[in-house]
Amino acid sequence: MKKAIFYHAGCPVCVNAEQQVLEAIDTQRFEIEVVHLGLDKSRIAVAEQAGIKSVPALQLDGEIFHINYGASIDEVKG
Amino acid sequence: MKKAIFYHAGCPVCVNAEQQVLEAIDTQRFEIEVVHLGLDKSRIAVAEQAGIKSVPALQLDGEIFHINYGASIDEVKG
Repeated sequence: MKKAIFYHAGCPVCVNAEQQVLEAIDTQRFEIEVVHLGLDKSRIAVAEQAGIKSVPALQLDGEIFHINYGASIDEVKG
Repeated sequence: MKKAIFYHAGCPVCVNAEQQVLEAIDTQRFEIEVVHLGLDKSRIAVAEQAGIKSVPALQLDGEIFHINYGASIDEVKG
């Protein structure tokens, strides 16, 4: 199984994107994980190392896809 | 069947995103269409009306998700 990780910070842009984008993913081939960087700050460093610059972002098998123009990772750090 | 339309303009950011994002979509529930706005300029107006501001962009059941920070629609118009 490949991995699909959806990073967000709970903002409205994120929640809408999460529901719709994740709903379209083939769960027969992709294991989905949702990470709320606003609540789980310990995952921010890993997200940054993976190349995430803003949220929401979808990581598909290691590749990063930033979705729409949400909050920057610095804004998420607070 | 729901519809997934992937809009792009042939740029490297687009082609990579197209292959990986579309590969993750569940083709049992989504009919996929790929639109190259660089070649098919007639679709630019429709894309703009749908809310597309840059490419690559994924339209899922009418909702627009801009992916990464590709070329603006004005740049695609040339």
